[in-house]
Amino acid sequence: MARKKLNIGLIGCGFMGRTHSNAYLKVNKFFDLEYQPVMRAMCDLNAEKLKTFAENWGWETTETDWRALLERKDIDAIDIVCPNNMHHDIAIAAAQAGKMVLCEKPLAMSVGEGKEMVDAVEKAGVANMVWFNYRRVPAIALAKQLIDEGRIGRVFHYRAKYLQDWTISTDLPQGGDALWRLDAKVAGSGVTGDLLAHSIDTATWLIGGIDKVSAMTETFIKERTHQVTGKVEAVKIDDACAFLARFKNGALATFESTRYARGRKNQNDFEINGEHGSIYFNLEDAHQLQYYDNRLDNHVHGWQTILVTDFEHPYMGNWWVPGCVIGYEHTFINALSDFLKGLETGEPVRPSLRDALDTQYVCDAVLESAKTGTWKTIAG
Amino acid sequence: MARKKLNIGLIGCGFMGRTHSNAYLKVNKFFDLEYQPVMRAMCDLNAEKLKTFAENWGWETTETDWRALLERKDIDAIDIVCPNNMHHDIAIAAAQAGKMVLCEKPLAMSVGEGKEMVDAVEKAGVANMVWFNYRRVPAIALAKQLIDEGRIGRVFHYRAKYLQDWTISTDLPQGGDALWRLDAKVAGSGVTGDLLAHSIDTATWLIGGIDKVSAMTETFIKERTHQVTGKVEAVKIDDACAFLARFKNGALATFESTRYARGRKNQNDFEINGEHGSIYFNLEDAHQLQYYDNRLDNHVHGWQTILVTDFEHPYMGNWWVPGCVIGYEHTFINALSDFLKGLETGEPVRPSLRDALDTQYVCDAVLESAKTGTWKTIAG
Amino acid sequence: MARKKLNIGLIGCGFMGRTHSNAYLKVNKFFDLEYQPVMRAMCDLNAEKLKTFAENWGWETTETDWRALLERKDIDAIDIVCPNNMHHDIAIAAAQAGKMVLCEKPLAMSVGEGKEMVDAVEKAGVANMVWFNYRRVPAIALAKQLIDEGRIGRVFHYRAKYLQDWTISTDLPQGGDALWRLDAKVAGSGVTGDLLAHSIDTATWLIGGIDKVSAMTETFIKERTHQVTGKVEAVKIDDACAFLARFKNGALATFESTRYARGRKNQNDFEINGEHGSIYFNLEDAHQLQYYDNRLDNHVHGWQTILVTDFEHPYMGNWWVPGCVIGYEHTFINALSDFLKGLETGEPVRPSLRDALDTQYVCDAVLESAKTGTWKTIAG
Amino acid sequence: MARKKLNIGLIGCGFMGRTHSNAYLKVNKFFDLEYQPVMRAMCDLNAEKLKTFAENWGWETTETDWRALLERKDIDAIDIVCPNNMHHDIAIAAAQAGKMVLCEKPLAMSVGEGKEMVDAVEKAGVANMVWFNYRRVPAIALAKQLIDEGRIGRVFHYRAKYLQDWTISTDLPQGGDALWRLDAKVAGSGVTGDLLAHSIDTATWLIGGIDKVSAMTETFIKERTHQVTGKVEAVKIDDACAFLARFKNGALATFESTRYARGRKNQNDFEINGEHGSIYFNLEDAHQLQYYDNRLDNHVHGWQTILVTDFEHPYMGNWWVPGCVIGYEHTFINALSDFLKGLETGEPVRPSLRDALDTQYVCDAVLESAKTGTWKTIAG
Repeated sequence: MARKKLNIGLIGCGFMGRTHSNAYLKVNKFFDLEYQPVMRAMCDLNAEKLKTFAENWGWETTETDWRALLERKDIDAIDIVCPNNMHHDIAIAAAQAGKMVLCEKPLAMSVGEGKEMVDAVEKAGVANMVWFNYRRVPAIALAKQLIDEGRIGRVFHYRAKYLQDWTISTDLPQGGDALWRLDAKVAGSGVTGDLLAHSIDTATWLIGGIDKVSAMTETFIKERTHQVTGKVEAVKIDDACAFLARFKNGALATFESTRYARGRKNQNDFEINGEHGSIYFNLEDAHQLQYYDNRLDNHVHGWQTILVTDFEHPYMGNWWVPGCVIGYEHTFINALSDFLKGLETGEPVRPSLRDALDTQYVCDAVLESAKTGTWKTIAG
Repeated sequence: MARKKLNIGLIGCGFMGRTHSNAYLKVNKFFDLEYQPVMRAMCDLNAEKLKTFAENWGWETTETDWRALLERKDIDAIDIVCPNNMHHDIAIAAAQAGKMVLCEKPLAMSVGEGKEMVDAVEKAGVANMVWFNYRRVPAIALAKQLIDEGRIGRVFHYRAKYLQDWTISTDLPQGGDALWRLDAKVAGSGVTGDLLAHSIDTATWLIGGIDKVSAMTETFIKERTHQVTGKVEAVKIDDACAFLARFKNGALATFESTRYARGRKNQNDFEINGEHGSIYFNLEDAHQLQYYDNRLDNHVHGWQTILVTDFEHPYMGNWWVPGCVIGYEHTFINALSDFLKGLETGEPVRPSLRDALDTQYVCDAVLESAKTGTWKTIAG
Repeated sequence: MARKKLNIGLIGCGFMGRTHSNAYLKVNKFFDLEYQPVMRAMCDLNAEKLKTFAENWGWETTETDWRALLERKDIDAIDIVCPNNMHHDIAIAAAQAGKMVLCEKPLAMSVGEGKEMVDAVEKAGVANMVWFNYRRVPAIALAKQLIDEGRIGRVFHYRAKYLQDWTISTDLPQGGDALWRLDAKVAGSGVTGDLLAHSIDTATWLIGGIDKVSAMTETFIKERTHQVTGKVEAVKIDDACAFLARFKNGALATFESTRYARGRKNQNDFEINGEHGSIYFNLEDAHQLQYYDNRLDNHVHGWQTILVTDFEHPYMGNWWVPGCVIGYEHTFINALSDFLKGLETGEPVRPSLRDALDTQYVCDAVLESAKTGTWKTIAG
Repeated sequence: MARKKLNIGLIGCGFMGRTHSNAYLKVNKFFDLEYQPVMRAMCDLNAEKLKTFAENWGWETTETDWRALLERKDIDAIDIVCPNNMHHDIAIAAAQAGKMVLCEKPLAMSVGEGKEMVDAVEKAGVANMVWFNYRRVPAIALAKQLIDEGRIGRVFHYRAKYLQDWTISTDLPQGGDALWRLDAKVAGSGVTGDLLAHSIDTATWLIGGIDKVSAMTETFIKERTHQVTGKVEAVKIDDACAFLARFKNGALATFESTRYARGRKNQNDFEINGEHGSIYFNLEDAHQLQYYDNRLDNHVHGWQTILVTDFEHPYMGNWWVPGCVIGYEHTFINALSDFLKGLETGEPVRPSLRDALDTQYVCDAVLESAKTGTWKTIAG
């Protein structure tokens, strides 16, 4: 069982750098795969932070210049987990250098950037994936399976929320290493790109494409000190965003995200109502899927809380035993396994950069609709 | 403790006729009030149904013509629980005859009708109330109390849903005694007037007025047999409606209602996110209020499920003992008690017809926005 | 539809007097029955309290001596809702006077008393019922139905709790009108007779008789002021009781009750684990029944929360519409309807006094086991 | 930051071998510790299985004879994760060889064995720990913290359950690598040692020692094919066990465990009721702790569901961000971190083998009580 080595170059040693490093470390321990990622090179601008990080996680070498990394012959795949405003340039250069491209979400700062990235990877013909990790929550993958089994039937409604509460304090600064997500120049947008992109990816994966949207956004705290400049600057990101949507299949939807929902830490939830049944999921109870089956006998209908820890459930056969949950970090390991399995089978992993571009189209339309106060049809 | 008699004339012996009759029968058994309603006269077009109903519930006399009822000197208050298209004429005539006016929701078929009704009762100076009974769910009244105590602080978000699933079958007819809510000529609208009116009344009571809305509606089943004509006719009501809203206080909101949410029987829920805390309520667990208090110690923060059955809780001191719940019908008894208490104290009960007109303005704007695809500012 | 009158004499105007009066007032409004109870006479030792109570509820006459009540020819049925130490004498005298006997639980102060009561009603051949009202919670009745449908199969486990928290304060006195349940001379026992009797009645109704028990009891607060004597007296009731049990069918069980479970107001819950499925119920969410069906497809197994408000569910067709819950008081109305239906059909209602005697045998064995520290086989 | 190496020899490559290997692999990535375990040697009787396992997990060397492992000078600590009947001999020999001893639970086959083990490690003065991993569930550690903060006050009740459902089928064999837990000769007992040992360890850690117990056990399936002998043999383990207990502090308790609770996969739950508050935990929702604080204002009392994912919560500052859960495997990593921290600070980690012996005393008394049908006082 000698495995094929896949040399990884990871760019970005922030929070996501940890989740990905952990995935590379563990994936072969739990999944039986032909490929084995090798933690070859770690790259970050901050040399000191990089050194500590790489040592701790066992990255074999380091680079502080991502262009240098791309020039190395001993790297097969580039994994981009640095801030959003760097995705575009790195992804294109990596593709042009013939490297596989793995990229954190959201894909890009805009549809324009995203299209160029997709063109680059497709032209280069390199394997690629965007880390919409929540597709790999076992319960969400089970939702997909239930839908594919025809258990829901015609879909009438979809409603998604992604609620957090960590930016309510007016004292919180913006920008810098830890808080670049609050700086529009680096993040592109606020909750729309950071959180709703997840919700949109999940929704379109589960029930299909969105036709049009009507949105509103708000920035509750108008100014914050910028950590890099030290000055009080206008906050340009959206603190909250909600939109109405119509899917191409006729379903109606509501989407909402905010970082001002006191008491909701990471409530990424969705509900699907169909002719024969309904489904509900909430990331704060990630090990559960709720399912309503209208075809059961009338007097026993009820929302059934499926504890998604059995061997039969997606991904769970690779982990522990029934009743033993996995956590947040495992979604990345599951995703990596799927990517490696894609290399093995030749069936490209999804979501590809092109799939992520579809989500980018929706995000851009949402922000545009909020600006103009009108319904926007999704381009693309 | 000789109580003052208040002679009631009730118009409409449908489902709501039962809930109101039950309230008249029971209110003085549980609330210590100066006034005592007398079940004097029951009115309905259907003489046979009326006879059975009146006998069963102990209504002293009957009328099949509501105009005859209004002419009677022995009636102090008219309670209108017949279909929506009759509210306007009866309410105005009752007010002109000097009767107190109690009216089921929604107030009217339109703002135009509603304004005339409000004018009539205010000109006549008669006591009046619209039965938005959910204000009298103890848990919702407790939510109001928590807000008034300043426990939430600045409100960032409000989100309300009212989901049911009873009209999904294509075989269900429209119109007639039992299904007039599906007939636009009688009901005025679908879920907007029937269900969202409740959500809007609750929302504005709790956190204030709505400034503007962007809505969409849908009719999933386009044609149904009409029970009166026997013909297949176009369905003109909205099966589903969702809208974005901005409150005058700056809060963002989403509202949604449908009768196509498989597995949701009467899910009238709402969540409020504020600076210091949040509140969640779901009518399907009507005896609970969920409250998140951010001012507790950091490590014990959590959504607390308040079992709203203690003597300290609104209305509950009048019922049983802690841990013993009340049900749907009690909201009407509690409301009636409030109405009678208003007569006693001279402090008019809320919501008045004028309050209900505010909700009608929102409903009309929602339907107009859905038609035009544009944001609508609330008039009034 | 002229109904047969059934003249009721109710003894005891405490808390239970209210729940029963309400039942007599309402039963015919919601259930289509041949019999109609008439609120003929109310009896209580306290003349002043009696007068107010009877007036409020519409009892036609009053008596302060229950023996005088039994002598009246215009009374068909005696309903005993006074403290436990009076059940025995009244029930026997009522049966001997040829009256039907309805009696609150627990049946008696002891098995000895209970046997004499059963002998009396059976010798007199009068209709009789003990108000174990929780059998009439729709969700519990549904549990019974699911079991009778064979959905659980062989039962391995039963576990029941009845937890409250209202006697934790050392300042609470014992005895008198409101707190006779804390006075062993009047109540017989503490939680065993008051709460566990309910749990035992439900358990044996659902899955059959108990074979033997091992119990422990505790009195946490050893002394309390007695409201009648004004003196600090030893507390003789059990504040808490837990016991292990083996059912005749081989199932293992645990039962526990206390009034010292902080935060549990009326948590009367039980779980049944069987070969094919399980059931869970909690009175604090009385409108729900949780059911696990192991015969569903492996990947959708889950505890389904049945919202017991549909027309198909026990009793619910007589009340409102799906999604609209009923409350605590309705269990008494449902029970009364069953009693009256029994008179109509000739199929005696259950639980009879004999059924309640079976529960008394268990209660006595439990208390005896706690005293001796040994397993006790249930006599009877 | 050069860390001190701690060379580990792990014995047993079954399910627990994976959880421990994973812990050794990851602990330093997430915890800042002076010590770093080195995955030096893996030992198992099954050479083939051992080879695959060791390669996959990166164990540097292998041994098929545990006595050979103990003789190696390059091993600092022995970790015993093989079946229960081998704990005694290995632990004693390891201690005598001067190795640190880490041992899976339950400690031993009996109190007799356990005492000899404790004597050996204490005589040798080696660091030691028993892997009662659930103490390291953040929510359970938080429960401990709340109790230590005085938030519960005097404890009245403790109730614990540990319910599973994986052995209901009569077709399931006993014995062999995967099912040795069903073979009394290897496991010692059934649910008592496997599951109740966890419940007892948690309980005594949280609220103190147990004074006496009254227990019952049952073996529902009397015979199963033995995988090693191929013969149908009597099942000697307890499929289920329940017991009443009195704690030394006066609290009453119920404990129950079974592998026949259909629908309960790993429901290790407990509830504590105290004077000022209560606590509830359920391993199937391991990221939550429920807490009832009776000292809050009367009208907002409620069970608060603490999402134990904040930086302030035990262990969670070492993992991800609020709202991101950890899973089953992390309890072992957290435990290992505590063990290493104990080496660093000189404050020995708990539970030691002596602590685990206390639990063994209870387990033995429980089994003895079930056999004799009498209350047993805990020795030790």
